[in-house]
Order: sequence, then structure tokens, then C-alpha cells
Amino acid sequence: MEIVEALGRVPLFAGLEPGQLQALARIVGDRVYGRGETIFSEGDEGVGFFVVISGRVKIYKLSAEGKEQILHLFGPGEPFAEAAVFAGARFPAHALALTASRIFYFPRAAFLGLIQQNPALAMNMLAALSLRLKAFARLIESLSLKEVPGRLAVHLLLLAEEQGEEEVRLDLTKTHLASLLGTIPETLSRILARMSKAGLIACRGSNVTILDRDALELLASGEERL
Amino acid sequence: MEIVEALGRVPLFAGLEPGQLQALARIVGDRVYGRGETIFSEGDEGVGFFVVISGRVKIYKLSAEGKEQILHLFGPGEPFAEAAVFAGARFPAHALALTASRIFYFPRAAFLGLIQQNPALAMNMLAALSLRLKAFARLIESLSLKEVPGRLAVHLLLLAEEQGEEEVRLDLTKTHLASLLGTIPETLSRILARMSKAGLIACRGSNVTILDRDALELLASGEERL
Repeated sequence: MEIVEALGRVPLFAGLEPGQLQALARIVGDRVYGRGETIFSEGDEGVGFFVVISGRVKIYKLSAEGKEQILHLFGPGEPFAEAAVFAGARFPAHALALTASRIFYFPRAAFLGLIQQNPALAMNMLAALSLRLKAFARLIESLSLKEVPGRLAVHLLLLAEEQGEEEVRLDLTKTHLASLLGTIPETLSRILARMSKAGLIACRGSNVTILDRDALELLASGEERL
Repeated sequence: MEIVEALGRVPLFAGLEPGQLQALARIVGDRVYGRGETIFSEGDEGVGFFVVISGRVKIYKLSAEGKEQILHLFGPGEPFAEAAVFAGARFPAHALALTASRIFYFPRAAFLGLIQQNPALAMNMLAALSLRLKAFARLIESLSLKEVPGRLAVHLLLLAEEQGEEEVRLDLTKTHLASLLGTIPETLSRILARMSKAGLIACRGSNVTILDRDALELLASGEERL
């Protein structure tokens, strides 16, 4: 496949115009790795990032005893090491080709130069990532709405029992609580807002007052949906 | 709240260093909107984007008959119109403050200038968005793994019945099929890979051969998990 065409199929570059894809194509390194070949090692300087075009890549760490822990597996279209490299950090783990793989390499300095000459390229990438993030957040919300309100109700009732009051303090940050409940902070906020609107609870800062214990218990038991 | 402190709490700016937050603070417009006040109208030039600091914003369209359709509701920490503005487009919908709201306004030209002077700012934003996207993708995967394999099994068995063969053509693109199944293309690919590894199917391009119909039927009935 032509480099420009392959770049156009990568979600990270979804917002780019043909001229911008061509500019990217001029800095790309088109690499082939054999099965089992190392791509980079933990601690190496993050001199560039990668996108899998075909094949499969394993990102892993090694414990002090040499035990391997797989962090991610990446396939076609997926970038790797980009977050570390964008942020100017070292590679935080090892990368190895699990199968024969074609991989595009983007040197950090050349990529930075491209953005400086052509800030619209960065803006279009930011636009594409923002749109994708919002679509992902909506999907997480629709997937979460089935179970998270019930789990949150259980949590609030347990807190009330532990603290011996109908007004409970949420001891965790919203980010931490969201991740415990298997959702994201935005969706947790929306569920709290829906519970408030339905008259189940009242929120004030990180304090939640239980207003309708019966309704909360039905939610916790899974007999009712929010 | 101080502007720099408020900026630091916005996920879109999560990867920025203190100096970069200060540079952003110099271009921000700190605005207050009353309940029901219009922020922008569909078709207005996208001269800048917004982040909700407090309050609640409704994004909506009006039909030819004047009927309102709400597209999104945004609360504290959430950007809006950024994807359109990054991409240099007009506002694609109306925006209105649902409650009294404090909103930061970022003029597009000043933001573009900032990136040109300081491409690392764009790189750090790209890094933060990339990390968030990957975390969201993992969460969607773990939320999807409960139900999507079963729904995919149903789909494959129906295709086999319609097409009268054990080797079926997937007529939809992977993106389209993923969205029908309530997941994302990355997760759909991983589920297909797991089904192949478990010997249920064999994939070749957009053709899927059913190898173990009984196992696929157990998956489809929800009696077995992948």
C-alpha cells in the first residue's frame, strides 16, 4: 500500500487533508520487523513514535526477576509510544513484533518541525482526537448506564451505613470513584445529576444526602433502572 | 478560582506544564453567561472554542419547523465546539447556557499563534488526548466483552443462514459493524482475533468461515462467554 494511503487509514491522522498527509509521508520511516524482533527497549530515548500498518506488536515490562508483564497488544492502525514521545519522555516499556509487521516510524524532531511550519496539522489532529474522545465517552456512558447507577447506589448505601448518617462524604475523588465503578468521571457526574433530578439524592460539593432510601435500594437491587 | 488553576483541571489541558498553562491563561476570555443566554448560533464563524468552568451548556439544532433537538449537554471541565474550531469550520449547532455558567473562551487565532510559537504545547495536548483515548478504548473493551461476542456470534450465524454457506462475507465495514454492535473497531478486531484463536472461526480479509458452529451457538445464546 502507498504510504499516503496507509497514513489516511490511521485514526490518529483522520482529520488531516491530503497535503498534510503528504507532508507526513515525507518524514515517515517505512520499517519491517521480523517475528520476535525488538522495536525498542524500556528507558531508550523516545526519539520517535510508531504506527502499526500490518502485524501485531506487544508492549511489555520485565520484573526484576525477568518475568514479563504484557501491557498492551497493538494491531493495524494503532499508534504506540506516541504519548511518551509527544510528551518528550523516554520509552516507558519494551516493544517487540509478535508477528512479521510493517510499522511506520515518525522521528520526533521532524514531527515537531512539521507542526511548527504547519500548526493546522496539529489542530486537525487535536480535532480528530477530540471528536473520537467524545464519541468514546458517549459509548462508555451508554454501556455504563445499565450497571453503574446500581453500583453507585450500593456504594452510597454502604457509606451511609458506615458513617451512620443520611448525609455521606464521598471520600474518593470523582476520578477514583469513577474508575472503581467502571466508568469515567463525566458519566459519573451525569449519573449523580440524574439521581438528584429524580429526587433520590442531593449533592453539595463532595457531600451526598440520601433523600429517597427506598428508591436507592430498588436501584441497588437491580429491580429498577435510573 | 484563579484562571491558571481552573485551566489545570481541564482534561484537554492535562498534559501541560505550568508555563504552558500560563501562556494559555493570557489568551483566555473569562466569560459569564446568564441562564438561557445564547453562546453562539449555528453557522456562526468558528472564531474560538470554549470550556465550561461551572454551570451547564446545551448544544442543540433546530429543525425547519423550529423543533429543538439536543445534541449534547456539557458540564464543568468539558470543552465544546473545539473539534469544529480546531478544524477551522463554522459552528455546526447552537449553544446556550442552561444555568448561570462561567465559561472560558479561547480565540482560534491566538491559540494557533501559541502553537506556532510553542509546538510542545500542541504535542503535550496530543499526548494527553492519546492517553485518554487509550484508557477509554480499554474501558470500552472491558465493558463490551460481556455482550459484544454474543451479539457478534448471532450476527455471524444469521449471515451464514442468509448466505447459505459456512464462509460468510461481512458486508459492512468494520467501523460500521462495530458501531452496530455497540463497540469500537479496535475491540471488534480483538474479539474476532480471540474467536479465531479459540478455533470458532477463521478470518480472511472480510470473509469469515464458521469452524465450530456449536461453540458459536453457545456464545450466541449467552450460555458461554468468550
